[in-house]
Amino acid sequence: MKKIAVLGTGSVGQTFATRLAGLGYEVMVGTRNVSEKLSTPGKDGAKNAFATWHESNLNIKLGTFAETAAFADIVLNTTKGLNSLDALKLATEKNLENKLLVDIANPLDFSKGMPPCLVPELSNTNSLAEEIQKTFPKTKVVKTLNTMWCGLMVDPSLIKGDHVNYICGNDETAKSTVKLLLNEFGWKNDNLIDLGDLSAARGTEAVLPVWLRIYGAKKSAAFNFNIVS
Amino acid sequence: MKKIAVLGTGSVGQTFATRLAGLGYEVMVGTRNVSEKLSTPGKDGAKNAFATWHESNLNIKLGTFAETAAFADIVLNTTKGLNSLDALKLATEKNLENKLLVDIANPLDFSKGMPPCLVPELSNTNSLAEEIQKTFPKTKVVKTLNTMWCGLMVDPSLIKGDHVNYICGNDETAKSTVKLLLNEFGWKNDNLIDLGDLSAARGTEAVLPVWLRIYGAKKSAAFNFNIVS
Repeated sequence: MKKIAVLGTGSVGQTFATRLAGLGYEVMVGTRNVSEKLSTPGKDGAKNAFATWHESNLNIKLGTFAETAAFADIVLNTTKGLNSLDALKLATEKNLENKLLVDIANPLDFSKGMPPCLVPELSNTNSLAEEIQKTFPKTKVVKTLNTMWCGLMVDPSLIKGDHVNYICGNDETAKSTVKLLLNEFGWKNDNLIDLGDLSAARGTEAVLPVWLRIYGAKKSAAFNFNIVS
Repeated sequence: MKKIAVLGTGSVGQTFATRLAGLGYEVMVGTRNVSEKLSTPGKDGAKNAFATWHESNLNIKLGTFAETAAFADIVLNTTKGLNSLDALKLATEKNLENKLLVDIANPLDFSKGMPPCLVPELSNTNSLAEEIQKTFPKTKVVKTLNTMWCGLMVDPSLIKGDHVNYICGNDETAKSTVKLLLNEFGWKNDNLIDLGDLSAARGTEAVLPVWLRIYGAKKSAAFNFNIVS
């Protein structure tokens, strides 16, 4: 059984884990502290959303960031962008060495009000993906899927017709592997726009500011961009 | 005859001026110094591109930034984003007072290599459009058309089917006037995405980094985004 690791327990992580398990992958989801994550009450004092999700997905393993990174050769980063570097450091450089890291996170900064801006030091002349690559030089980082609602990431057929997903990274073999995974989710190669090396993440992460404004105008996240010519 | 002012003599300014004259507008194009602009040789020592364009468009008036801003109640800013505030200051606050300023420029910084990044102090938690609005509080600034190749700005039918143009601004009447102008260019209202107040320009100006990467991948500027749902 093919193994895959998902770092992060939010709605994006849950969405990937459920979908990958449905595709026949052996999945482990990583978090800082498993028992604390499961036992922390939700906002209303009841079971939190992740614990509720976990009860319906007991076939999906849980582990610390380090255990999860050690578990598989393909690691998805679905943590909040502001926390991603810390989470990956907990996963450890050794556990990520020679691994393929698919970075789906966005460096959003909610501290200055809504809608969030990008973290200044992780945008414009830098990106979260590039910072991860610099911090873990022996890991092959591929950026993709970060420009849309998570439902579409794992099932593009939720919207009829063509719409696009960007992909970039410094390692061509790693990008090819990710494209095959994207095909399993339902992405057609014609709709995968390869933007070249990882510095293109400066562009794809910068889609978020306009995405958030369109979301605000449409009052729905179930949209995506198509490129027409 | 309806009058319109175009600040800037680059390919975007030329494109707007020609199209607007074709639509029956009386057009004036503004630059820092008209005679200097016309007489400066091009890169190959021959007549420069603007002077060549001007010879074929003698029905279009030329003036200083100030003369041009004074000429019409609708002023289009097609100057380079890095120079826009200086150009508008030369146009003068008085000449821009109570005017509608359509800002089409992008705050691109080419000093750090290609593709350009955004000017840090005019992006993320600010935008060129907002900075213009702050500098000229009695002018009604509307941001639109800055997310595509200039050919499409004035003739969206160059691409078959639907593709979108964002619009934002603080004054609803000013936005309505700009929408009518966009309709004259061929933009259907369904493809005009109103993103609300001018702070949405933080999102639309941030489209440029990914636009430039897609342009690099496609080797053609004749594309645009559509939103599908």
